[in-house]
Amino acid sequence: MTAPTASAADSTLPGAEPQHPLHVTNELFRIAFRHHPAGVAIVTAANPDPVGITASSVASVSADPPALSFSVSGGRSAGRVAEADTVVVHLMDAAHVDTVTAYATTGTERFAEGTWEPAVTGEPVLKDAPWALRCKVIERVPVGSSILVAAEVLEILRGEHSEPLVYHNRAFHRLTETSLIQSRDAG
Amino acid sequence: MTAPTASAADSTLPGAEPQHPLHVTNELFRIAFRHHPAGVAIVTAANPDPVGITASSVASVSADPPALSFSVSGGRSAGRVAEADTVVVHLMDAAHVDTVTAYATTGTERFAEGTWEPAVTGEPVLKDAPWALRCKVIERVPVGSSILVAAEVLEILRGEHSEPLVYHNRAFHRLTETSLIQSRDAG
Repeated sequence: MTAPTASAADSTLPGAEPQHPLHVTNELFRIAFRHHPAGVAIVTAANPDPVGITASSVASVSADPPALSFSVSGGRSAGRVAEADTVVVHLMDAAHVDTVTAYATTGTERFAEGTWEPAVTGEPVLKDAPWALRCKVIERVPVGSSILVAAEVLEILRGEHSEPLVYHNRAFHRLTETSLIQSRDAG
Repeated sequence: MTAPTASAADSTLPGAEPQHPLHVTNELFRIAFRHHPAGVAIVTAANPDPVGITASSVASVSADPPALSFSVSGGRSAGRVAEADTVVVHLMDAAHVDTVTAYATTGTERFAEGTWEPAVTGEPVLKDAPWALRCKVIERVPVGSSILVAAEVLEILRGEHSEPLVYHNRAFHRLTETSLIQSRDAG
């Protein structure tokens, strides 16, 4: 594939010489992960008031017991989420890209009645999120100025689904049949 | 967007009634994360022989110091990776989908000379991976039968880049201009 792509700008990044070991700078590390695609989540808590953050770090850790991880860094909202006993992790899709975008912008955090409703433990739940997983935090691991959180899933809520949403290089993509890479077996 | 998509099969999944709290089963948890898109990585170690696993759980944790997380579960290779002092985390893209597929298949793990070469600490490095991050493991957190690993990045190697690669619902997708969701601002 040589067609121009969303990552074509990579050629202008530092370290264009393949496999030359690079001094690890914070900026180079950020560039590497800016180009690592990720699903998008909104993690909410009630600590004590409703609070939430967007997260591209949510991953499954264990299926038995069901547990996931995410990390939070910087900011007062992040700290309040990391310190909560329970959280609700919403796995978002393309229908919610405007919600996610608005949510990630400082000062626009809202939990409008009708759109959000409280879980039994008080966290705001986005009513039509594709998946909302209410979790109990079981581990908090400080890493630099960030906190890596592991949480066991207590309850799963399932909403409407649309196309999968991906965050990459500060932009959002949707997955469709067109983006699918056909396996060699499928001819 | 109402066009048929890769996630259209969702409507046949259990729990189709939106926002009805669902009993948390291991299988339901797997379904939720099967539909959460993720970037794809290969994590290698030398413990004591070369070993590697594919991982869709790699995420940035902290930029200062640069640190990432991933989780491993089950299998002898996974245990050897989790127990290693240092690892190399390769962030993969669409040009390597065949490598990733072959790699994830039990019994096909290979480190062919010419394609792979050892890092200074012995881990196999895929020479033309888009990004290879040599890391020191700094935390291992047992979660159920899995291990959540945090690692500080010591060295970054940069190779050729192609289109971003995404894993979703047991299939691979590539991100292109076509998959990009135009922001409202960009009109």
